[in-house]
Formats: sequence, C-alpha cells, structure tokens
Amino acid sequence: MIRLVIVEPEGSYNVGFISRLAKNFLVDELYIVNPHCDLEEAKRFSAKGIEYLERAKIVNSFDEAIKDVDLKIATSSIADNRGDILRKSIRPWELPKLIEGKRIALIFGRESVGLTREEIAKSDLLLFIPGNPEYPVLNLSHAVGIVLYEIWKSKGENRPTVSSESISLIDKYSRDLVNLIKNNEEDEAMYIALKRALIKGVLDEEEARTVIRLLRKLYVKLTKKFE
Amino acid sequence: MIRLVIVEPEGSYNVGFISRLAKNFLVDELYIVNPHCDLEEAKRFSAKGIEYLERAKIVNSFDEAIKDVDLKIATSSIADNRGDILRKSIRPWELPKLIEGKRIALIFGRESVGLTREEIAKSDLLLFIPGNPEYPVLNLSHAVGIVLYEIWKSKGENRPTVSSESISLIDKYSRDLVNLIKNNEEDEAMYIALKRALIKGVLDEEEARTVIRLLRKLYVKLTKKFE
Repeated sequence: MIRLVIVEPEGSYNVGFISRLAKNFLVDELYIVNPHCDLEEAKRFSAKGIEYLERAKIVNSFDEAIKDVDLKIATSSIADNRGDILRKSIRPWELPKLIEGKRIALIFGRESVGLTREEIAKSDLLLFIPGNPEYPVLNLSHAVGIVLYEIWKSKGENRPTVSSESISLIDKYSRDLVNLIKNNEEDEAMYIALKRALIKGVLDEEEARTVIRLLRKLYVKLTKKFE
Repeated sequence: MIRLVIVEPEGSYNVGFISRLAKNFLVDELYIVNPHCDLEEAKRFSAKGIEYLERAKIVNSFDEAIKDVDLKIATSSIADNRGDILRKSIRPWELPKLIEGKRIALIFGRESVGLTREEIAKSDLLLFIPGNPEYPVLNLSHAVGIVLYEIWKSKGENRPTVSSESISLIDKYSRDLVNLIKNNEEDEAMYIALKRALIKGVLDEEEARTVIRLLRKLYVKLTKKFE
C-alpha cells in the first residue's frame, strides 16, 4: 500500500501533476497536508489524474497524514551532510526491497523549504534523489515522479517473450546464411555473433517473426542464385 | 554527450521544468524544435536551469535537431501495439548500456500528439516508460525527468561499448539488405526490426564487427547475382 503525502504544497501545478503521477503509477492514497495553493487550479494540470485530486484526503497536520502506516519515508533535496545523522539518506533504487509487503507513506515537503527537521525526525527513513552535485534540487512533482517510477519498475513488468520456435528459426537461418557465404572456419564466428545478437535483441514474438522473415527472404534469394 | 531534443512543445511550464531538469542531471545540449509556447514565460519554471533555457538551440526542423549524433532515441507514451513494428520499444533502464560513450539525442514529442510516425522512423530506437496500463501517459517534463534520472543513475559503471561507426554500419547494411529483397512498403518493417534488434543485441565492438562482416558478405553476394 502506497500513500503519497504532500506537505503544504505551494504550487497548484505541482498538486495537479502529482495527482496525474498518482494515476500513472497507481498510488493507493493521496494525502495533502494543509495546502497552500488553489486545489481547483490544480485540476488544470491533473489530466486523467483528476480522480485522485477529487478524492485526496486533505488533513490539517503532518501527524494525521502519517497515521496507520508501517514505514514513513521522508524525502529531501539536500544530500547527506557530514555529521548530521538526520540527513543520512537512502537512494530511490534502495526503496523496493525496504517497502515490500508494507504500508508505506512517501512524504514530500514544501517547494520552498522542504520538510522540517521535526518532520524528518518523525519519519523512519530519508530519501534523496542524486543529481548534479551543484544543483540536485528537483521540482517537487518531478521528484515524486522519479520515486514512483522506481517503485513501479520494481514490481516487474511482464515483458512479452519470444517463442522457442522463433529462437530455433533464428538459429537455423543464421546457420544457413553463414553456410552460404563462409570461406573458412573463422567465418563460423559470424554465425555465433548473428544468432546471439538477434536472440538478445528481439523484443517480442512479433519482432522475432519479422526478423525471421527477413532472414528467410535473404536465404531464398541467395540459394536461387545457385540453382 | 546527451542532447535533449524537445519537439514543438506547447506548454511553457514544461519547457521551464525541462531546463531545470537539464541542469539537475547535467545534460550537454538542449534543442527546441519550433516551440509552440512562450519561452519567456518558461523561465518562471526553470529555476536555476534558466541558463539551459537561455542557451537552448532553437531550430526549425526535426532533422536539424538530430544532426551529428550517433544514436537517436525517440520516446512515446504509447506502448507497443500488436502489428506495429515501429512501436516496439525499449525501457528506460535498458538505455545506459546502449548509449555509453555515444553522442545521443533523447527526443520528446508534443504534449498533445507526441512524435509523428515519420519522426519515430527517423530515430534509431523508441523508448517507453511503463506505468498504469490504463493510463501510462506521463506529462512531458515528468517523462524527461525519469529518463534523465535513469541515465544519471547508471553513470560510473564501466561497460563495454559499441562504436558509433558500427552502429551506423549496422543501420546501413540493414537498409541495403532490405532494399534488395523488399516487395512492398510493409517490408520496410523488416529494416526497422533488423536494425533495432542488432543495435540492442550486440554486446560489444567485437560482436558488432562480426555481425557487420556477415551483413556485408550477404550484401555483396546478393548484389553480385544481379550484375
């Protein structure tokens, strides 16, 4: 369960964009603590995420927004400072294994000043998105997007696969083609390279079929020559 | 070298946010093709990325924006469609190993309609950011942020690379071979499929060279037939 908590947002466009991102990455709950901007105006930027904005829970305090979760993750655009334990932070790609199976709150602070030290202290972890050391400060909604993307990614997309029949056809035609043009044993490497590159490179069955059609056409054309 | 190419952006805020992201993730060049919005207004959203906006290269055509790069990566918010080879796409986390050591253009389309099929066809690869299957359509600048973050994250890892010369040779011979055997416009898909599969599939320069040698031999053999 992912709850997105936005603390005292100042820009309507950010609230709108965050609602859209909530829909893009299927967040479970959106909480807004004491908004400092016009939520009606935010709708202009929410696109199909407007449903998230309309049913967002508007609360008056930080404490209310972080109730009933297992893990509270604060975020900051300030990297770890020497000697400041409160600022020790994790990176977005470390999140997935930490949050698995948990009810979590992802907490983002104000555009101007972020989260207070007190708010960070009330959270369990602090997350920082690395970037240009001279200016890693992302706009609020862009930080939200990156964190949600990283979590979504870890859920594992079901990538389409290539059938074993197509793999063996790629093998067969690579073999046949190389046999037609090879001059010596070293040319055998061409068969290995072509076969492997294609097997690794084709994204799905359809792309595999298109490549096989090409290999077959090349083969037919070349063999006709010797008839 | 990373060139960020924004094609006919319609929202000033997106151009501003993208300039800020260019600074957050140290993009090398920002190109804007034929902007359909107010670039002065964009400055309101660029924060310390304003320098990128001020020295952005404004060009009149897509072709001008993709000149002098090794690898052109188009992006789309439309996932792979059945039967449409042009829409086969890679994921952001697959980018780092494909672009290492190369001059690349990351190309983002219009907020309303994205990139045209012609623009995608002129690019080498197509990238899609996965999300809620019912609504994966990210706002433009948020998509930019996620792709730049993913590239930034990967920096520092040493992986073998494929030279830009090899990429253009794979492109050339894929083109030449398909020209020799194509019967109709649909066969054009074979060129896209072969080129992309090989560019994605070859692991290093040596593997690439071996595949190119094979493609060249096939081509020579086929053309001799018609002498």
